[in-house]
Order: sequence, then structure tokens, then C-alpha cells
Amino acid sequence: MRKNNRKLDELRPIRIQRDFNIHAEGSCLVEFGNTRVICTASIAESVPPFLKGKNQGWITAEYSMLPRATATRNMRESVTGKIGGRTHEIQRMIGRAMRAVIDLTKIGERTIWIDCDVIQADGGTRTASIVGAFIAMTDAIIKLNEQKLINSVPIRDTVGAVSVGIVNDRLMLDLDFEEDSNAAVDMTIVATGNGEMVEIHSLGEEATYTRKEFEAMLDLGLESLKQIAELQNVFYEKMPSINLWKRKSVKEAKL
Amino acid sequence: MRKNNRKLDELRPIRIQRDFNIHAEGSCLVEFGNTRVICTASIAESVPPFLKGKNQGWITAEYSMLPRATATRNMRESVTGKIGGRTHEIQRMIGRAMRAVIDLTKIGERTIWIDCDVIQADGGTRTASIVGAFIAMTDAIIKLNEQKLINSVPIRDTVGAVSVGIVNDRLMLDLDFEEDSNAAVDMTIVATGNGEMVEIHSLGEEATYTRKEFEAMLDLGLESLKQIAELQNVFYEKMPSINLWKRKSVKEAKL
Amino acid sequence: MRKNNRKLDELRPIRIQRDFNIHAEGSCLVEFGNTRVICTASIAESVPPFLKGKNQGWITAEYSMLPRATATRNMRESVTGKIGGRTHEIQRMIGRAMRAVIDLTKIGERTIWIDCDVIQADGGTRTASIVGAFIAMTDAIIKLNEQKLINSVPIRDTVGAVSVGIVNDRLMLDLDFEEDSNAAVDMTIVATGNGEMVEIHSLGEEATYTRKEFEAMLDLGLESLKQIAELQNVFYEKMPSINLWKRKSVKEAKL
Amino acid sequence: MRKNNRKLDELRPIRIQRDFNIHAEGSCLVEFGNTRVICTASIAESVPPFLKGKNQGWITAEYSMLPRATATRNMRESVTGKIGGRTHEIQRMIGRAMRAVIDLTKIGERTIWIDCDVIQADGGTRTASIVGAFIAMTDAIIKLNEQKLINSVPIRDTVGAVSVGIVNDRLMLDLDFEEDSNAAVDMTIVATGNGEMVEIHSLGEEATYTRKEFEAMLDLGLESLKQIAELQNVFYEKMPSINLWKRKSVKEAKL
Amino acid sequence: MRKNNRKLDELRPIRIQRDFNIHAEGSCLVEFGNTRVICTASIAESVPPFLKGKNQGWITAEYSMLPRATATRNMRESVTGKIGGRTHEIQRMIGRAMRAVIDLTKIGERTIWIDCDVIQADGGTRTASIVGAFIAMTDAIIKLNEQKLINSVPIRDTVGAVSVGIVNDRLMLDLDFEEDSNAAVDMTIVATGNGEMVEIHSLGEEATYTRKEFEAMLDLGLESLKQIAELQNVFYEKMPSINLWKRKSVKEAKL
Amino acid sequence: MRKNNRKLDELRPIRIQRDFNIHAEGSCLVEFGNTRVICTASIAESVPPFLKGKNQGWITAEYSMLPRATATRNMRESVTGKIGGRTHEIQRMIGRAMRAVIDLTKIGERTIWIDCDVIQADGGTRTASIVGAFIAMTDAIIKLNEQKLINSVPIRDTVGAVSVGIVNDRLMLDLDFEEDSNAAVDMTIVATGNGEMVEIHSLGEEATYTRKEFEAMLDLGLESLKQIAELQNVFYEKMPSINLWKRKSVKEAKL
Repeated sequence: MRKNNRKLDELRPIRIQRDFNIHAEGSCLVEFGNTRVICTASIAESVPPFLKGKNQGWITAEYSMLPRATATRNMRESVTGKIGGRTHEIQRMIGRAMRAVIDLTKIGERTIWIDCDVIQADGGTRTASIVGAFIAMTDAIIKLNEQKLINSVPIRDTVGAVSVGIVNDRLMLDLDFEEDSNAAVDMTIVATGNGEMVEIHSLGEEATYTRKEFEAMLDLGLESLKQIAELQNVFYEKMPSINLWKRKSVKEAKL
Repeated sequence: MRKNNRKLDELRPIRIQRDFNIHAEGSCLVEFGNTRVICTASIAESVPPFLKGKNQGWITAEYSMLPRATATRNMRESVTGKIGGRTHEIQRMIGRAMRAVIDLTKIGERTIWIDCDVIQADGGTRTASIVGAFIAMTDAIIKLNEQKLINSVPIRDTVGAVSVGIVNDRLMLDLDFEEDSNAAVDMTIVATGNGEMVEIHSLGEEATYTRKEFEAMLDLGLESLKQIAELQNVFYEKMPSINLWKRKSVKEAKL
Repeated sequence: MRKNNRKLDELRPIRIQRDFNIHAEGSCLVEFGNTRVICTASIAESVPPFLKGKNQGWITAEYSMLPRATATRNMRESVTGKIGGRTHEIQRMIGRAMRAVIDLTKIGERTIWIDCDVIQADGGTRTASIVGAFIAMTDAIIKLNEQKLINSVPIRDTVGAVSVGIVNDRLMLDLDFEEDSNAAVDMTIVATGNGEMVEIHSLGEEATYTRKEFEAMLDLGLESLKQIAELQNVFYEKMPSINLWKRKSVKEAKL
Repeated sequence: MRKNNRKLDELRPIRIQRDFNIHAEGSCLVEFGNTRVICTASIAESVPPFLKGKNQGWITAEYSMLPRATATRNMRESVTGKIGGRTHEIQRMIGRAMRAVIDLTKIGERTIWIDCDVIQADGGTRTASIVGAFIAMTDAIIKLNEQKLINSVPIRDTVGAVSVGIVNDRLMLDLDFEEDSNAAVDMTIVATGNGEMVEIHSLGEEATYTRKEFEAMLDLGLESLKQIAELQNVFYEKMPSINLWKRKSVKEAKL
Repeated sequence: MRKNNRKLDELRPIRIQRDFNIHAEGSCLVEFGNTRVICTASIAESVPPFLKGKNQGWITAEYSMLPRATATRNMRESVTGKIGGRTHEIQRMIGRAMRAVIDLTKIGERTIWIDCDVIQADGGTRTASIVGAFIAMTDAIIKLNEQKLINSVPIRDTVGAVSVGIVNDRLMLDLDFEEDSNAAVDMTIVATGNGEMVEIHSLGEEATYTRKEFEAMLDLGLESLKQIAELQNVFYEKMPSINLWKRKSVKEAKL
Repeated sequence: MRKNNRKLDELRPIRIQRDFNIHAEGSCLVEFGNTRVICTASIAESVPPFLKGKNQGWITAEYSMLPRATATRNMRESVTGKIGGRTHEIQRMIGRAMRAVIDLTKIGERTIWIDCDVIQADGGTRTASIVGAFIAMTDAIIKLNEQKLINSVPIRDTVGAVSVGIVNDRLMLDLDFEEDSNAAVDMTIVATGNGEMVEIHSLGEEATYTRKEFEAMLDLGLESLKQIAELQNVFYEKMPSINLWKRKSVKEAKL
């Protein structure tokens, strides 16, 4: 059995606490079981050089773990002076996920910085980060709209993420750290609320897998993402016909 | 008037949530008003080269702020690749404060890493860090003792810290960010529960101050540190005669 | 039409020149159209710290591009002092691909360093790197066996990679740089000669895609990987029943 | 007894050689016993970004030690690629000391870079640096005035620094390296010629101290700073009523 | 005897393959025996800060070796984060050699970046780099002229380089790696086609040498540089009277 | 005319102050006119990895300039985090010069670190560094012998260096900064007291030169090195027949 009697195809309890930070334009604390990530969105009135003068915005993400987010302490990347490959891989994925559901040409020449800081890790930090980053980003964009800095809330859909793996020959949803360590195959699925795919990344750890296994993992993950989308939807009133999203006065949502 | 009708010589509400992190040997979330710092203590079974074979332990601290802990986003030190002077200054002070109240020869050849990560900043991050670091460190040392890895809990006293400043010619205790920005003089006082001094650091921001002003600041700070020591004491049963501290089953304390 | 009258589901001409480097234990120059990558495998008689004493080996990869491999010159990562996220992402993928087909417990406590250096880039550098890295690695392992340093050639299967994308609403195989720049969706498929999957990574560039599109891309890519496996097989005589691979005296293979 | 029959409350011989460097706008070699520091002031016609357009200047300091300034050779910070915490702590203190006595709004949009390079160290390098930096800075500002680039010499007072400590239970002034290594408590006092306080930094080395001890250290230090101010005054003719300082033709001063 | 029956005063086979790279404004692969270097020239429409507004151009070079260019694998400088002294020494020499034969005031405010990447090393990588860099640079300048961006081809002469050494008391030309490792003295000679000297660098490896030995080395090297100049001349039609060079349709030249 | 009525073939006044540093095993301040360099030699009881167990020592050098050694302030290499090419070039030359005159197999498994720190620069810092480094190194080796840590003083000869250049078509010896800036050709000559050559490095600054000019520069430099050797000899009593050097009680020598 999995910890806490969790079923193979069951998500861990998910909790999103909105407005976790008093300074950021959008923020939340997102929890997937014991995994806890602070997500903030910060607006900067400039774009990277490659977008200067193109009349569009940019969204970029940074991801980090506190040194003792994990079972044993890790050195800070500020001390080693190097950002590791895993960090790069995750923060690039978060940025792409956000950019997939937003119309960058409608937010003006500004950058939205997404920061995902893992304060406690127990597997699934990248998927939790994406789920929380969407709330932080959306709240920040709604704020821009409320301040009349932009004319719409150009978000096409929610975006969420979940992990699936094969552990001891069994398909499992939303792996915790121990399960992930024992997984032969590990898949991250990023998809929109409507089930459109954003990013699929499956990989064997010194192992291979069949097409059939692959499709089963994908089915399981996409199914569970509906629940995550529902959770994210709790925070918003959406009026797609007039290109508008509004905040509902919800402080916290749980699954 | 100060924010929230606070008096000039009044501390902000202080809250310490113990065991904030499931992995660390000791941890807490400490809040001074809107300033929130996660403090963890991690035990490593080794000492720095300069202490090898000297049969004593070491305590060192690292301090960092999340990029959006502040009103405007700061670049991560892992991205700039450089640890700034302010960070260095603060983390050295935290380490010295901890080492001042512990007998390093009684903890074996191991290092206690203190991590103070500011998740939200509103002035006083260094003093909050010291107050929380003491709890994290003490819990970690008690754990070592409970595990029979060391024979005592070689802590002489609690250690706390507070800031005092002169803002618009008025003496003020426990400055928040805005007050600190307007302070002509700024003093950090680190002292033990018994009122022994550990570190005094007072400095003018393009300003000087008289001996009399200096003494008034010192008096005010030392007085308030009694309250902070009381708060820290809530968590422990102390038996100095047999060189022992024990955890009380307190999860949270507030001032 | 695609450049050089290439069909949508057609690979570019692929060429592998074996033993391109006189020093390396295994090496080749691999070309996918105008993309040219030098792959070398170097044996080091040590393993990373996390594997010390575990009686197994390790395979790791580094990837880089010469500054003028691309249409406009890029700064060297040695000059910026930072290894970029894209580099990290690719070299981690190459390493995983190699480790997926080899039994690390059979190569002793040694590390095989794979270096993939792109001397000219025109899209598909990561897939070409994986295809060439397999030849370099295999030749190096065969050499270890010939020198009696290991008792077998513990390679389970060939491993190859190819890219697929959706460009202007059309499915395309093996994208060149220009096609890749215009792709809405981009998928990298890493699979073994037998069609077992190693890594699937599909992502939208500010776009999403349906499950149906996804499956079509996957089908197309897996089909073409059979050709790539055939090309790799040209270089070896395989005797899986006795756990042995041998070099055929082939210097060059083309597709 | 202290080395060279020095009394507990006695400064080491201090010597300041002015114009030690032919290039710098202001410079000196300052010696406190065997501690020798080259101080230069360099004028740059620009200010840091946070002051652009604010019609004021800036003063900043850098501090460094030659690798063999100390008893055993230290690696250069240019080789480690990192500026250590101690260096940061000291150079920030030097900068604050200078800024405390100058009116930055009267020097135009320019930066004065103070460089303090320790060519030989025997304790007290930070206090010697401050004493010498004042001469270098003042000479540079007078030069600006002589060149009619600014209308006044907007220096309020001299600024000096001294260390005090408790070594083997005895209060001692101006610690040399060996005394400093044995000090339980160590205080740096930065004050103006008039006895106004600029920065007080006292800290226990794994030790605490009483308020009474603290005050005794402070008294001793402030008293001795009068001598240091006198020494600095030798170099200048001061006309505060007309906001002017002039160089006297003094090349060297000793205490 | 030397390898391949080479005489003491004999160059290794030299081969230059022009236009080795499809992107660069000028490029070649140059081989001196087993030493193989890719040289590219890239035009950037800007100059370094110290030349801004001076109406002249700049030429700078970067040199690097692939990690397995050598008999044992070297760590990448991008991984160590530091550019080594040897790399700096060589790339500065390449840059100076190019600048010695070109009139920088005639190429406009642009920079020519020369990249010399050693893909296989067997001694003489710096001399091969200079020989190839000249071809890449010249082709790039001719292209500027063909595109009417500049009015002339302001190259005064070809520039080449060769090494000479004393190995086991014998004078040897064009040392390979093994010879170089055993050389007591080692000289690099950079000279123009007309025999004008550009750079002479001779040094003893824990050894000294007489003036007579020095002169003999210099004679030998200068003599052989005539052959190298001849090889370079194969690629160009030179019309010095009208300040013009043109490409001949030669793809490859050998010595 | 040259500054101070110096003749074309005349050295600037040279002064060596021995034992400039109280800590180092050997040290001096060397001056060539306004160029002033502190040279220290430090003994470390270890060798670099490539020499471990080979029963020989090593000598290595580091060179640096204080930020305001020059007419305008330069950023510290510790701040840029990078050691520049010029620094590398010079410190490698200093190290080679020292190693050329010492028998490394006779100093045991230890490293002599030479530090040359330019406190004021006016051209010729590398040549002054070599001249001073020899004194520092020799004094350190003599000390090792006096302490009976080694059995001899295995120095073959003095080693010195001087620069020669062609400035406005005139041959000039020992260039100061201004002359150096205007030199078309610039040569550094390192040679032993007996006139054996150690390193010759001549280079044109966007210029070439004839063999005849080259030989004239070399003649002039070698001639002047005799004077420098004489100056160095003032400090030592040499007994080559018994492989011994001793310190004479000379504190300062001038030319």
C-alpha cells in the first residue's frame, strides 16, 4: 500500500493558499502532500533584449529549493555559484507551461517573473510549482487589468501538471519522493484545463518501457489533471466571451 | 503614530511555529510582524578543515531572502553568482550569536548548519533570524542528546536579538522596513536571556549620534530582549544544574 | 516543399564517420544534413562520489556548440562562465539515453565520458548527438572488452533519437533549424532498436496540441527510428546470446 | 606585558605617509605598528544606478589583503573567485565611515572609490584602513575643490577608528594580531574628531560580556580616538565657517 | 628518427580545407599532421568600448580545445568556469598576429571574431591556428569588400607561424606533441609572407639556451615560414597596387 | 628626450629593498623608476597534484596590480571574478623565469609561491617583478637551507629581465608606461647573470619589424641585463663549487 492508504491512481491532498506573500502581484503556497512550494509572480516593466520593441511581453520562471527542503541538506546554488541542470530543466518547463496558455502580445512590454521556491520537498515539486505558478501568474495579470494597464485578461485556459510513474511494475499517480526514487519510468504531464497537451516528458531511469505502458501512464495523468483544473477554477470567474477573468474572493482551495 | 498603533518602545507581534519542516533536526517559522523567516538546523557529521581532530564541533549559518521577499523583486544570488556583502554580514552575525551560547567542545566533531530563509521581509530579518535560529539549533542539539550521540545539552542560555533606531529624532524599537529606511541611526543588539551582551552593532546612515543617544538605544533594546527570552523559554524545560534542556510539547508561541 | 525536395516523413541524409578522433576510446562524426557533431567516448578509471564502492560504473555526457556552429556567433559558455539551461537539458538527455541501454554493473568502477561537440548546427543537434554517442560509447566498451578489462559487452540494444514537429499545421520528421523555428510543437523521441521507448519529450512553443496530434507525431518518429537503428547496426556484429558485441571493419555508414 | 612594553591603554606607533601613490587623487600609507595599509581615493565621473539623476555623489570602499600580508599565505580572492564575508564586512564599514562625515549632495554626480590594500597585517587592519581612508578621501575632495569642480570641501569632521578588546580578562587598546586571536571580546569604534559616534561593533568570540565591560571598552576607545583625530588634523587647515579645508604641506605624521 | 621519417627541418604535412563551415563569413579546417583546428571568422557590427567612435575596427581571437582533443580528456573551461592561462596566452597571440597584417582603420566600426577550435591536438595547435585564422579572416574581409561594405581589402601580407625547438640537443622544426614534451627549449615564430617578424616567443622549460642556439632556431623557423606563406597564397589573387585581394576558387591546399 | 634626461640605452634608477615584509620567507620591494612591486616568496609543504610523489618541488607565481596602481583605476580581478589574459601571461612568465635557474629536484616536495603585487605602475612591471622575485625566492631557499630542511642552495645563476622597444623609430631600453604605449615593437628579455637566455618575447603592436631590428633590440637588452645581474649579486655570497649561496647583510641595493 501507498502511504496514508492512498490508491495507485489517487492524488495526494492538494492545498492552495492564495496571497501568501504581501508584496507580490500574485502569490500562493501550494502543497501536494508534504511538498510545499511558494509561488510568486512579479511584474517588471521591461522585456528581455530579444523582445525589445516587438510590442509583446514575456514570462519567465525561476525555481529553487531551500537547502533543507530535502531529507539531507543540499548546498545552496548561490554558494556553489552554479545553477544545476535539474534546476534549469524544471524552471524552463515552468516558464513554457505558463507561456502556453497566455497571449503574450496582450500584456504589453513587460515581463512576469514567476518564482517557485520549494520550502519542503517530497516528490512532485515541479508539478506543484506549475499548478501554483498558474494561480500566481493569473492573479498578477488580473491585477494589471484591474489597474487598467492592460485591456483584457489574455489567458486561454488553466494549466496544470502531474507526475505518473511505474514503480515495482505498477502504474502510480503523483509520486512522492520515495516512490519516485524507486520508479523505473517517470512521466511529467502538463496540460490545460480542456485537456490540450502542453508538455509530455517521460523517461526511463536506466530502463525502457513499451508504447502500451506509455499510453497507460498518459491516460492516467490526463484523467487526474481534470481534478487539478477544477481546483484551480475555484479561484476564478471566467468570461471567455469578453476575454476576461476575475478573482473570486477565495483564499484557499483544497483537494 | 507607528503602524497598527504600535508604541515607540513596543515590539511587533512575534510568533514562533516550531517544527515547521519535517526533515530538519530542528526548525521553526518565526514572524516579527510581516517579517517571516524559516529557520532550520541540520546536523552534519564533519567539521571544517580548521577544526579537524580538535574534538569539538562547529555552528555556521546561511541567510538568504527569496527574490520576492521584498517590495520589489531582487535577483537571486545563485543567478548573480555572488553572495552580497549584506548577506555575508548577516549570516556571520547569526553564526556568532549561536556560538556565543553553546559549548562547542561538548557536541562532538559535527557541524550544525543553521539556514535562515526569509520568505517575507518587512524589516528586522536579521533579528528574527537569530531568534528563530536559537530554537532550531536548540531542538537539534536536544535531538542529538535524545539519540545519545552527546551526553548533555551544552547550551548556556537563550540568545535573542532586536533592532533599535532613531527615526525622525525619536527612539524606536523593532523597526519595520519603512522605519528602517528613514532611520538616521540603526542598532542591532544580540544578548542572552540573562542580559549578557553578545553583539552590539550600531551605525549611522550618513549620520552620527551622541553617546547619550547610543546609551538610550542600548537600554531600550536590552529591556525588550527580556520579553523575547521569555518567549523562547516557553519551548523548553531547563535543568542547568545537570546541564540539560528538554523540549516542552509546545508547537507555537506568540508575543 | 521542404529543402532538397525532402518529404514530410523523410529523414535528412545521415552519415556516421567512425574513429574520427585518434585519441578517444570511441568516436565518430555524425551528420544529419548540415548538422555535424563530433562524439567521443573517454574512459576514466573512477566513478562519481555517489557511486564509490558500489561496484558499478557510470556514463555521463557533455554537450557543447562551437561559437560559430550557428548562423550568428554565440558567446562561449567558458566566457560567460555559465552553462546554459539548454545545454544542461540536452546533455542530461544524452546521458540518460546511453544509460538506458547499458548494464552499468558490468563495466566496473569506471566512468564513460561522452562528449558531443556540435561543429555545425542546422536543427536536430540533440538527436544527432544521441545517435553518434551510441557509436562512440559502444566502441569504447568493446575496447574495454578487447583489453580484457571487462568480461562482456553489456549493451542491451542500440539507442537512437529523432525529432518530429508540427510546422504550419503539417507533421514533419527530423526538423532542420528553419523548420524548428517555425514549429508550434516539437517532440524528441529516444528509443531502442527494438522500439522500446527511452525518453519522449514533446512541448508546445506558446501553443498546445491534441492527444491525436501527439500520437501521430509519436507514430511517425518511432517508425523512422527503425532506419536509424539499421544504420547503427551496420557497425556491429551482435551476439546477444553470449553477451557480446564486436566491431565490424566499417569506417562509414550513410542513410 | 604587551610587546614593546606597550601599556594596556596605549596605541601602537601610528604613521601616515601622504601621497604614497603618484596616480591617485588622494593616497597614503598608514601604519599601526606592523600593520601597513595603502589607501587611495579615485574619482570617477559617474554614480551607481540607484543614484542616477539625484544630483549627489557616492563614496564606496574596497578592502583587500595581499596574499602574504599574513603569517601564512592566503589564496587571492581573484583566484577563489569569491569575495569573502570578512572582506565584505570590512569594506562596507569603511564606506559607511567615510559617508558619515561628508555631505554627498555637495560633490556632484561622482563616485569616490576608496581602496584599502593591506600590504602587511598585524591586527587592526580595518581601523588603520579607516584612518588612512579619511586622508585619501579628503585630499581627493580638496583636489576637486582646487580644480573648481566643486564649490566647497563638504567634510563635517575627521573620522577615525580604533579597536578595543578583552584579552585574558584585561581591557586592551588597539590589539595586534596575537592579542586579537586571544580576545574574548572585540570592539571596533568609529567616531568623529568631535567624539560623535559613527559605528560601534562589539562581539564576543564564543563568549559574552557585561554591560559594564562594554561601557569600559567604549570609554577607552573613545578616549584614544582623540589622539588619532589630532594626528589626522596635522594634515589640514580647516575653515568650517566657510565650508573649506586646505592641505597643509605635511608629508608625514606620526604618533 | 622522427615519426614518418620526417627530417629535423621538415614540416609535417599541412592541409587547409576552405569553407569548412556553412555559416561563418570565413572558415577553414587546418591540419598540421594530426593536429586539426577549425578556424572561423565572424563579423560583428560593433567594436569594444575602448574603440567606440574612433572609426576603426577590431580583430580578436578565441581559442579552445575540445575535451578529448588530447590524449587524456581535459575538463571543459565552461565547467571549471575559468579560462586557463595557456588558453589566454594563445588566443592573445592569434589576435595580435591577425592585427599585425591588417589596417584596422579600413574595415569600419566592426569586429572580426576569430575562433580557433582544436578538434584534435598533436602539438603546434597555436601555429596551426594562426595559419588557418589568416585564411578565415581574409575570406571574411574579402566578403565585406564584395558586399561593398568596405572599399578595399586592407591586408598587407599573409601571416603564418611555426614552432622550433631543441629536443635531445637537436634543433627540430614543427614539433609534434611528444617532441614538444621533451623539448628543452621551445620557440614560436610568427612572421609575414615577406619575412617581416610579428612575434617571437622562445622559452626554456626549466632550462636556458645560448644566443647561438637562439639564432639557429630563428633561422630555421623563418626559412620554413616561406613554405607556409606559399601555401596560403594558393587561395588568393593579390593586387596590392590597388589594395585588393580576391578569392581564387581553391577549396583545398596541401603541403 | 626621455623623461629625467634618460638616454635611449639607459635603465631607470632601480632600487631593491630586501625583507620588505615581516612574514614572508623572502621578500623585497623592487622599483624601476616609478614602478614599484612587492615581491614575496612563501613556502608551502606540498606540491601540485601532477608532481605528487615525484620527489621534487615546484615554483609558481601570481601577479596582480592594486586597482589604483595605474593612471586610471581598474576593477579588481576579485570583483570581476576573472583573471585576465595579461595577468595570466605575466605570472606564467615569472614562474618560468624562476624555474629556469633552480634545480627543482633539490628543494624537496614543497612549493614556493612567488607573489608579485604592483603597488604603482609605470611600465616594466613584469620585468621588475622578475628581478624582485629572484631575490625573494633566493632568500626563501637560503632560509630552507639554514633551517637544514634542504642540503644545498640549488640555484644555478641569477635571473633578470628587461624590456626593449622601438618608439618613434628609435630603439629604447626599459620603457616607461608612456613610451610603452607608443612603442611599435616591444620585447621582453629574460636572461641569467651569465647571459644565457631564458625567455625572449617580442611582439609588434599592429606592426611588424625586421630581423635586423630584432637583433639590435636583443643586443641592447642583453647588455643591460649585466647591470641588473650585478645589482642582484650585491645581496649574495655565492659558492657554486659547494652548491651554496649565503645572504650578505645588505638591506638595499640601487642602480
